[in-house]
Amino acid sequence: MMELQKLAELTDSELQGDPHCQIQNIASIEQADKTDISFIHSKKYLPYLSETKAAAVILPRSMSNNFSGNKLINDDPYLAYAKAVTALYPSDQSNGVIHPTAVIHKSVRLGENVSIAANVVIDEGCEIASNVIIGAASSIAKNCKIGEATELKSHVTLYHDTIIGGFCLIHSGAVLGADGFGFAPQKNGKWYKIPQIGNVILGDNVEIGANTCIDRAALGSTKIGNGVILDNLIQVGHNVSIGENTAIAGQTAIAGSTKIGKRCRIAGASAVVGHLEIVDDVTITATTLVSHSIHQAGVYSSGMVVDDYQSWRKNTARFKKLDALFRRVIKLEKRQKKGI
Amino acid sequence: MMELQKLAELTDSELQGDPHCQIQNIASIEQADKTDISFIHSKKYLPYLSETKAAAVILPRSMSNNFSGNKLINDDPYLAYAKAVTALYPSDQSNGVIHPTAVIHKSVRLGENVSIAANVVIDEGCEIASNVIIGAASSIAKNCKIGEATELKSHVTLYHDTIIGGFCLIHSGAVLGADGFGFAPQKNGKWYKIPQIGNVILGDNVEIGANTCIDRAALGSTKIGNGVILDNLIQVGHNVSIGENTAIAGQTAIAGSTKIGKRCRIAGASAVVGHLEIVDDVTITATTLVSHSIHQAGVYSSGMVVDDYQSWRKNTARFKKLDALFRRVIKLEKRQKKGI
Amino acid sequence: MMELQKLAELTDSELQGDPHCQIQNIASIEQADKTDISFIHSKKYLPYLSETKAAAVILPRSMSNNFSGNKLINDDPYLAYAKAVTALYPSDQSNGVIHPTAVIHKSVRLGENVSIAANVVIDEGCEIASNVIIGAASSIAKNCKIGEATELKSHVTLYHDTIIGGFCLIHSGAVLGADGFGFAPQKNGKWYKIPQIGNVILGDNVEIGANTCIDRAALGSTKIGNGVILDNLIQVGHNVSIGENTAIAGQTAIAGSTKIGKRCRIAGASAVVGHLEIVDDVTITATTLVSHSIHQAGVYSSGMVVDDYQSWRKNTARFKKLDALFRRVIKLEKRQKKGI
Repeated sequence: MMELQKLAELTDSELQGDPHCQIQNIASIEQADKTDISFIHSKKYLPYLSETKAAAVILPRSMSNNFSGNKLINDDPYLAYAKAVTALYPSDQSNGVIHPTAVIHKSVRLGENVSIAANVVIDEGCEIASNVIIGAASSIAKNCKIGEATELKSHVTLYHDTIIGGFCLIHSGAVLGADGFGFAPQKNGKWYKIPQIGNVILGDNVEIGANTCIDRAALGSTKIGNGVILDNLIQVGHNVSIGENTAIAGQTAIAGSTKIGKRCRIAGASAVVGHLEIVDDVTITATTLVSHSIHQAGVYSSGMVVDDYQSWRKNTARFKKLDALFRRVIKLEKRQKKGI
Repeated sequence: MMELQKLAELTDSELQGDPHCQIQNIASIEQADKTDISFIHSKKYLPYLSETKAAAVILPRSMSNNFSGNKLINDDPYLAYAKAVTALYPSDQSNGVIHPTAVIHKSVRLGENVSIAANVVIDEGCEIASNVIIGAASSIAKNCKIGEATELKSHVTLYHDTIIGGFCLIHSGAVLGADGFGFAPQKNGKWYKIPQIGNVILGDNVEIGANTCIDRAALGSTKIGNGVILDNLIQVGHNVSIGENTAIAGQTAIAGSTKIGKRCRIAGASAVVGHLEIVDDVTITATTLVSHSIHQAGVYSSGMVVDDYQSWRKNTARFKKLDALFRRVIKLEKRQKKGI
Repeated sequence: MMELQKLAELTDSELQGDPHCQIQNIASIEQADKTDISFIHSKKYLPYLSETKAAAVILPRSMSNNFSGNKLINDDPYLAYAKAVTALYPSDQSNGVIHPTAVIHKSVRLGENVSIAANVVIDEGCEIASNVIIGAASSIAKNCKIGEATELKSHVTLYHDTIIGGFCLIHSGAVLGADGFGFAPQKNGKWYKIPQIGNVILGDNVEIGANTCIDRAALGSTKIGNGVILDNLIQVGHNVSIGENTAIAGQTAIAGSTKIGKRCRIAGASAVVGHLEIVDDVTITATTLVSHSIHQAGVYSSGMVVDDYQSWRKNTARFKKLDALFRRVIKLEKRQKKGI
C-alpha cells in the first residue's frame, strides 16, 4: 500500500489528480481494479484507457489528455512502471537464517546476515559475502566466492573457483563453471579430453536465467561483465567474454572464445560461432547465425521467416539451385547485350 | 502378464486367434520374443511381420491378411499399442510414504496418500492434493498448489505461487515460475529489472519435459492449458498462453506474451517471437522462426534444409545478392519486352 | 610442479633446452608467466612468441626456429598441450568418502572406494562400481548401473534402469532417462501418453554436458556409444543411437529414433529430425537442419549466415518469391532462344 504521491516521487513522474490516492497493487490496463495502478506505453492500448477501473495510470505526456483520472505523467512509462513495481514489491531480502539441513564446510567464510535454505551444500574454502541468499538444494563447490547481496535461487550449481559479484541474481538450474567442450582429436578417432582448469567470473548486477550454462575457461576465465542479463537455457562456451550491460535472450548459444561487446542485444535462439569478436552496441535479431566477426555497431540478422508450407517447400527446393540461377541470369544478360 | 482377450478389450481391438494367449511384455516387431505382443502401423515394417516371434501382433485390417498368428485388429494400431503399453505398465502410483529427510513447512496442507521422496523441500503455504508424488530433491517455494495425482519427478523446481492442475507429469530439471526476462532500458545503458510479480498456472493432464523452463508472468499469469505436452529444454517466456492439447517439441523457444491456440503442433528447435497470436490447429515444422502472427490454421515453415557444404556455400553467398538478382531479372524482362 | 623432461615424455615431444626446468602451471602464450609452460598451434599467435615469459613452449617443428627458449617440439601441439594439462592437473579421484547425509537404499551394491557427496539419493537395486564419484545432490532412481571410475557431478538425475559405462563424466543438471516425447493422437484432439518403458545406455568414456537431456527409449534402449562427447543443453530423443567417438556441440536437438554414425561432428544449435540415418564421418556445420538421411561421409550445412539488417530484410522478403523468379528466368530463356 502506497500513496500515489510517493509513487510519483519514486518513479520521477508528474502527478495529476489525488496525491493521497492509495495504491495497493499494479496491473495491466485491461485487468486493473480500483486499488491498482496501471500504465500505458503504446497507442494500441488507448481503447482500454477509457474503460479501465485503475486507481491511477502511468502514461506519457502525449496521451495524458486521453485520461481524466489520477495519472502519473512520464515520458518513459515503461521504466516508470518498472520503478513502481519495484516500490510496491521489494526484492527478496536475506532473513539471516541458515537452515539446519544445510551442509556447510567448516572452512567456509560467511558474511553477516547470510540466508541459506534447506539442503544447500557449500564445500571447502568458499567465501560468501553479507546479505547473500542461497536457495534450497543449491550446491557450491570448492573455493567459490559470492559477492554482497547476491541471490542464488534453488537448485543452482556452482563448480569450483566460480566468482560472482555483488547484487546478482542466479535462477534455478543454472550451472556455472562446468567443463568447456575442449577435446583434442587423435589419430585413432578418439577424443582426448583437455582438463578445463580456468574458471567463471561474473561482475556485479548480473542476472542469469534458469537452466543457463556458463562453462569455465580452458585456461584463464570466462567473463560476464557488470550488468549483463542472460535469459533461460543459454549456452555460454569456455573463454567467452560478454561486455557490460549486454542482454541475451533465451536458447541462444555462444561458442567458445568469442568476445561480445558492451550494450549488445542478442535475440532468442541465435547462435554465435567460436573465436569471433562482436563490437559494442550490436543488435542481433532472433535465430541469427553469427558466422563471422562484427566490426561495426548496428543491427544484424539471418533468420528465415515463416511462410506457408507449400510456398516454403517450393522456395526451399529452389534455393539449392540459387547459384545456378545467378549463372543463368548472367548468361541471359550477356546474350541480351549481344542482341542475341 | 495379461491374457490377449483382456488386451483386446482394453485396446478396443478385434481379436483373431487364441484369446487365452499370455502376454508378458511389449516389443518392437523386430525384437519381439514369444511372450511379447508387438504392433505394426506402417507398410515398411511388413518384411519383419513374417519373421516375428511375437505371441501376438496389433495391426490394421488392411494388413491383417499378412499375418497368420494371434492378432488384434485395430485401424489405429499406434493408439492401440499405446493402450496396450499402458495396460501392461501401469503408471507410477503414490505409496503414501513421506521420506524422513523431506523438509516440509508446518503450514503445508497435504492431501491423502501423498508420496514425498528424500530431500524434497516444500515451503510455507503450499497445498498438495491427494495422491501426488514428489520426486527426490525437488523444491517447492511458497504458496504453490499441486492438483490431484500429479507427479513431479526428481529435481523439479517450482517458484512461489505456481499452480499445477491434476494428473500432470513434470520431468526432472524443469523450472516453473522463474522470473520472466523483463528489464527496462535506461539512458545510462543499464537495465532496470522489472520485478516479475505474476505466476504460472498449468491446467490438468499437462506434461512438461526435462529441463524445460516456464517463466512466471510479469503481471497476471503464464497459462498452460489442459492436455498440453511440452518436450525437453523448451523456453516459455512470461505471459505466454498455450491452448489445450497443443504439443511442442524440444529446444523450442516461445518469447513473452505470445498466445498459442489449441491443438497446435510445433516441431523442435523452432522459435516464436513475442507478442504474437497463433490460432488453433496450426502446425509448425522444425526450426521455423515464427516472426509474425498466424491467423489461419495450416502448416507453416521456414527451416532451411541440409545440403552438401560446397553447394550450400555458393548458394548462401548468392543469397546476400538475391534482391539485386530480382532487380536484374526485372531489367531483363523490360528490355526483352522492348525487344532490345 | 613437474620437470620439463617429464612433460616431454608424457606428451611424446622432443625437448630442446633445459630438461630440469620446473613447470608449475600452464597458460596461454599471452598470459604465461615464468613458471608456466605454454603452447602455440597457429601462426596467428607467432607475434606473442617473441614476448612470452613462459618457462617453455610446446610448438610444431615448423615454428621451432621462431623461439629460442626451452621448447617441446610436437607436430600436434594441441594434443601435446592436452596431455600436458592432464599431467599437471590430474582428474578427480575418488576419496572413498560417503557423506552421512547421502540417502542410499540398503539394496544398493557399492564397489570399492566409491565417493558419494552430500544429499545424494540412490534408490533400490542400483549397482555402483569401484572408484565412482557422485556429486552433491545427484539423484539416481531404481536399478541404475554405473561403471568403474565414472564421475557424476552435482545435481545429475538418472531415471530408473539407466546404464552408464566406465570412465564417463556426467555434468551437472544432465537428465538421463526421462520419458521420450511419445503420445498417440486421438480423435477427440487429446494426446494419449505412451508409457516409455525402455532405458538409456551409455558406453565407456562418454562425456555428457551440463543440462543435457537423453530420453529413455519407448521400447528398447537409447544408446550412446563409447567415446561420445556431448556438450551442454543438448536434447537426445528416445531410441536415438549415437555411434562411437561422435561429438555434438551445444543446443543441438536430435529427434527420436535417429541413428548417427561413428566419428561424426555436429556443430552447435543444429537440429536432426526423427527416424533418419546419418552414416559415419559426417560433419554438420552450425545451425543446420538435417531434414533427411545422409548416406555419404562429408560436410553438410543449411545455416543462413549473418548479414546487415537492411540487406537481410530485402533478401528475406524476396525469398518468398524465389520459385516465381525461377519461372520468370525460364520464361526469359525460352523467349531469348526463340529470338523474341
